[in-house]
Amino acid sequence: MTLDDLPTPCLVLDRTILKRNIAMMATALAQHDVPLRPHMKTAKSIDVARLALEGQPGGITVSTLAEAEYFAAHDVGDILYAVGIVPQKLDQVAKLNDAGADVIVLTDDMDAAGAIAGHPKPPRALIEIDTGESRGGVAPEDDAMLAIADRLGVNLAGVMTHAGHSYAGRSVADMVRIAEAERSGVVRAAERLRTAGFPAPIVSMGSSPTALHGASFEGITEVRAGVYMFGDLFQAEIFTHAIDDIAVTVLTSVIGRRPGKLLVDAGGLALSKDRSTEGAPKGFGFGLALDRMGRRTLGDAIVRRAYQEHGVVELDAQHKVALPIGARLRIAPNHTCMTAAAHDRYYVVDGGEDVVAVWPRVNGW
Amino acid sequence: MTLDDLPTPCLVLDRTILKRNIAMMATALAQHDVPLRPHMKTAKSIDVARLALEGQPGGITVSTLAEAEYFAAHDVGDILYAVGIVPQKLDQVAKLNDAGADVIVLTDDMDAAGAIAGHPKPPRALIEIDTGESRGGVAPEDDAMLAIADRLGVNLAGVMTHAGHSYAGRSVADMVRIAEAERSGVVRAAERLRTAGFPAPIVSMGSSPTALHGASFEGITEVRAGVYMFGDLFQAEIFTHAIDDIAVTVLTSVIGRRPGKLLVDAGGLALSKDRSTEGAPKGFGFGLALDRMGRRTLGDAIVRRAYQEHGVVELDAQHKVALPIGARLRIAPNHTCMTAAAHDRYYVVDGGEDVVAVWPRVNGW
Repeated sequence: MTLDDLPTPCLVLDRTILKRNIAMMATALAQHDVPLRPHMKTAKSIDVARLALEGQPGGITVSTLAEAEYFAAHDVGDILYAVGIVPQKLDQVAKLNDAGADVIVLTDDMDAAGAIAGHPKPPRALIEIDTGESRGGVAPEDDAMLAIADRLGVNLAGVMTHAGHSYAGRSVADMVRIAEAERSGVVRAAERLRTAGFPAPIVSMGSSPTALHGASFEGITEVRAGVYMFGDLFQAEIFTHAIDDIAVTVLTSVIGRRPGKLLVDAGGLALSKDRSTEGAPKGFGFGLALDRMGRRTLGDAIVRRAYQEHGVVELDAQHKVALPIGARLRIAPNHTCMTAAAHDRYYVVDGGEDVVAVWPRVNGW
Repeated sequence: MTLDDLPTPCLVLDRTILKRNIAMMATALAQHDVPLRPHMKTAKSIDVARLALEGQPGGITVSTLAEAEYFAAHDVGDILYAVGIVPQKLDQVAKLNDAGADVIVLTDDMDAAGAIAGHPKPPRALIEIDTGESRGGVAPEDDAMLAIADRLGVNLAGVMTHAGHSYAGRSVADMVRIAEAERSGVVRAAERLRTAGFPAPIVSMGSSPTALHGASFEGITEVRAGVYMFGDLFQAEIFTHAIDDIAVTVLTSVIGRRPGKLLVDAGGLALSKDRSTEGAPKGFGFGLALDRMGRRTLGDAIVRRAYQEHGVVELDAQHKVALPIGARLRIAPNHTCMTAAAHDRYYVVDGGEDVVAVWPRVNGW
């Protein structure tokens, strides 16, 4: 089976690039002697997880309990569920842990901490620390942290933070600065807990940009990152991932032709409506069209409009192409986590046109 | 099972509202004595299709061949696949038609028309007519239409158009005008074909706004519409659907609390990153939070930020609420087609909190 035999639109994963990206992150963190707990929210695939876990302790991060169930069923049971827990989800976590998993939950809330401690089979829990993103978490200096720790009691396993605001950085210097704020904030939180007599064996930080650019990981016991495995156009714009190292693309067929434009069968569902490069230096619309082999031979051929099942590629005046109906292109995504989520499988290639494997994804909740 | 027993995030479909929406469109079109070929790209559900087909001839419209296969397997075989066909997809269409379906394809391209006519088991085909949207299609006055008709030969079954630019309308008067351009354009195309000696038994037009607001459907043999079944915030802004008549919402749990804000477990994947209300008079961010029963008791509680699995609801200063962790809300979508596509099923209610059915969806390609 080759790229020409695949139904379009579909998701193509280049394993050669994937392995290179995984090695790059592993090397970066090995220099700091800090292990990786890869975040599987992007790939949602056991086959990808196995590659990402090579040389690492074996724990993963997930964003849904559907992922937790899937990975636990595939014998990856050391799982951090990195979205604030609600009491109603504790039974599902307990069921997984009863069956042998070790799903760790996250909270920044007194009531949730009480529900964890009061559950008949409580999981281990981390306290979410806000180191600048202001999405969730308590500040390292906030005494609420100590109150939550007290409420969690023996279930407390440490602290975690996510510097998601690294995505607002626009230079390597920004990333270095944000990474240090992330590190020092969560380490300070752990120190305050320990000073107050609480244990904090886990001190977890991470986002792909800060994992890659952090100058020090002192005091950190694990780093989380996920999007680095695949990369995307947005990551390319924030200096964490070269466009040529984007591992996941959407294979699409030309379904219409107009002067200077191609209509393709990858629209808002196949690409997602994410427009994260809009505010980055260069806007890539809903994606960048590459040729069938994933090479950037079309210049700035950008998906400027995305209907449900139609994408409109505006061609670069310097790279005029006359492609027939049915010709195939690959679209590099703005935000790979969002794009991949519309697809239930990866068609895997190794840099060529042969499909060497089909790997399923675990979508939904 | 009640709303409180459901995993969050998930999709809730209020069947009472759905039936009302379906009756509203059926009544509007019955006044013009024109039948409906409901577009199933929004609902992607046989259970919804059965309701939408009541009192109609029985044909449907689809946006993917996955939908075509699913509906044909559920004995709805009169199917218009309303995305420009590529030669590579003709075998799959032929297989469905061999098994008893009547999948009609669409083209605006000479090469594709040649591939259809040259296929050993050619499907019937409509020529796509551009009546102002400028996405796909040939203009009614373009002689290319006649050349395509000639190439299609006996497989030609008529013409179709989609006034997708009705979504850019911002008043009922706009919709009436665009509907008339859509109608007169596609009828003119059919007349030109007939004058040139070609048959045009099918003259198909439609979008939810033009189906609802068209003043005349003279010469039209069928109208296509889909989003009217569910409605969304964008449709509410273009005068085609009241907010209280939105049938599909995302049930979500509060996972975090900050002053003036709620963090919920419906993020960019559960809601989609669609921002179609951004350019409408009122921007609803990534959705509007309703209470657990789907009522608008929270005022302008708008999902202003959407991360992969986190949504940030900014509360209306006039409707301050103090909700506990785990409290449930319903989010009305910006664009229901995009939001529903992230979910594999509907949890069906009849205006209350009891879940009366679970209906699957056919996603993907």
